[in-house]
Amino acid sequence: LSASMAEGSRTSEARRDDVFGRWVIFSPARSRRPTDLKSHNPTNPSPAPSADAPKPSCPFCAGRESECAPEIFRVPPPEPEASPWRIRVIENLYPALRRDLVPPAPLVGGEEEEETAPGERAMCGFGFHDVVIETPRHDVRLWDLDAEGVSDVLLAYAARVRQLAEHPAVKYVQVFKNHGASAGASMAHSHSQMLGTPFVPPSVTTRLNHMKETFERSGHCSLCEIRSEYTLISETPNFSAIVPFAASYPFEIWIIPRQHISYFHEIGQDKALELGSLLKTMLQKLCKQLNDPPFNFMIHSSPFGLSSSRLPYAHWFLQIVPQLSVIGGFEIGSGCYINPVFPEDAAKILRELDCST
Amino acid sequence: LSASMAEGSRTSEARRDDVFGRWVIFSPARSRRPTDLKSHNPTNPSPAPSADAPKPSCPFCAGRESECAPEIFRVPPPEPEASPWRIRVIENLYPALRRDLVPPAPLVGGEEEEETAPGERAMCGFGFHDVVIETPRHDVRLWDLDAEGVSDVLLAYAARVRQLAEHPAVKYVQVFKNHGASAGASMAHSHSQMLGTPFVPPSVTTRLNHMKETFERSGHCSLCEIRSEYTLISETPNFSAIVPFAASYPFEIWIIPRQHISYFHEIGQDKALELGSLLKTMLQKLCKQLNDPPFNFMIHSSPFGLSSSRLPYAHWFLQIVPQLSVIGGFEIGSGCYINPVFPEDAAKILRELDCST
Repeated sequence: LSASMAEGSRTSEARRDDVFGRWVIFSPARSRRPTDLKSHNPTNPSPAPSADAPKPSCPFCAGRESECAPEIFRVPPPEPEASPWRIRVIENLYPALRRDLVPPAPLVGGEEEEETAPGERAMCGFGFHDVVIETPRHDVRLWDLDAEGVSDVLLAYAARVRQLAEHPAVKYVQVFKNHGASAGASMAHSHSQMLGTPFVPPSVTTRLNHMKETFERSGHCSLCEIRSEYTLISETPNFSAIVPFAASYPFEIWIIPRQHISYFHEIGQDKALELGSLLKTMLQKLCKQLNDPPFNFMIHSSPFGLSSSRLPYAHWFLQIVPQLSVIGGFEIGSGCYINPVFPEDAAKILRELDCST
Repeated sequence: LSASMAEGSRTSEARRDDVFGRWVIFSPARSRRPTDLKSHNPTNPSPAPSADAPKPSCPFCAGRESECAPEIFRVPPPEPEASPWRIRVIENLYPALRRDLVPPAPLVGGEEEEETAPGERAMCGFGFHDVVIETPRHDVRLWDLDAEGVSDVLLAYAARVRQLAEHPAVKYVQVFKNHGASAGASMAHSHSQMLGTPFVPPSVTTRLNHMKETFERSGHCSLCEIRSEYTLISETPNFSAIVPFAASYPFEIWIIPRQHISYFHEIGQDKALELGSLLKTMLQKLCKQLNDPPFNFMIHSSPFGLSSSRLPYAHWFLQIVPQLSVIGGFEIGSGCYINPVFPEDAAKILRELDCST
């Protein structure tokens, strides 16, 4: 890596990550300088938070709760005091999976058994699709909340995932946030979503299989081993924010718990506050550096009911992906991404960026 | 499947395909009627082909060849007669992989050996990135050519892939076309691309592993077995155009050779003419039904140097993906797609659509 480390003299390089096992092509010739990369689709160029600006047409705003699908819970709870809500977890009005269908019968069997028989190719679309409204205010973005506010959102995710984990037919919960229309957000009001699926999703299987291979070869968990100073952006006692060695997207960030833990939903209040603070800082940095880009973040956790023998290589993390370029036929066909910005350069830019002003 | 076959009464369903092994969620509640689905980003709403409209700023137009990266070959060849070119294969001016780097040393070993050592995580960005200019005219789309013209483009792909296959460090060639800016096309002039990579791309590995599993379980190749009348759009003696059982994208089309063949680049003139005709018809149908949508197509072939023992499950095909919706955090995180249109419905609409007028 020594050659590619010298700034200003980068040439194309292919890298494979130790988590998904994906090859990524780094091609600096296809972009201007890394610091010139900006979003052409800023999502909210001039936010002017003001307390008295509910949007009449937005069902996620305070006062329009009756226009939403049923509420699952709110924060703070309505009892014992009737204080205004800060977060609401509700059903999605247009769910991709439906909680009212009869779930597939749970399989009973050994740990090697798949969630469906090998040849099985279809099942009913049972599942859960929930929405987390992160704030009652239309004009507040997730990173406008204070660290405790962000941490409350993370704790709401975890609480809902724990509820879904109780259902025997739910195999995995994908927690994600789409910010900006071109990142898939159909509502401008700040929110996240989660889907509880009756199968283990393809990328989760691929990720765990690859992390298992790495563990068996090296004796180490891929994510415990990430200790490269030159891709570090920031860290707290319990979390590291890095640009991964083989980032698929320019300025992609991973926030990784430094302790080896398989499930996100086991997070407690103290660590959630640390994570909330770090997530807020990372979103501020991306917004400032990249001109308020559309982005997604995803929590990569583990399928429910892992036997303990599989746990040593399963390590949850949070991935943030700014949407700065279009995915084309090469990426769709090959599964290989082309990234114009080397992770060392992106990490340095984000590390040195001051968001305190 | 009987319940989901009854039109008008569809409910959510999850399906896994036999080629990539991916789960897809079919969710009709998230869309209007399938026939209402149109592109909001038409790529070329009023094309008016006229012979005398070269675009002065376009280096792909006839007469501006000197502004392009070096030519690899043209059709027809300049010798013996100096007739005007119909197709040019050139180097990409901004290549993602570079032919001027020293390629990784080829590994010598058994067929089970991977292209790199298991722990290897980086290699130089050696490779080939070529462009196929499909027509000298700026205002002609691929499907405006006659069947023979489309077939000549396919034969140009195959000829260039055969050249790249000769290089010992090239493991795979991904042929693809991006049409429309939001599908990744940076040039409006009709063109395709191919990348010759020094590794087997992730999706190719996943696809072949999954097809091998299916073969070992069932004794049949996944793609030889596709015989479902209700997803058929059209067929010729040697090719079937279908909407796959577990299509990831609404109105996705696969064109599959009916004979079991592993490599696209072995195609001959007769079959290329049939494929060209079928491809033209499919692109016309998508353009008419979906309001000239941005789209990608990808040729899924096999890595070079397969041992013959692996061939029984490797079957090439061409995938066409209209870009009608945005990919969000759920898809990025889980690898699972949400498709609002059932394949049976998309196939019926496309099958019955008349493009002869």
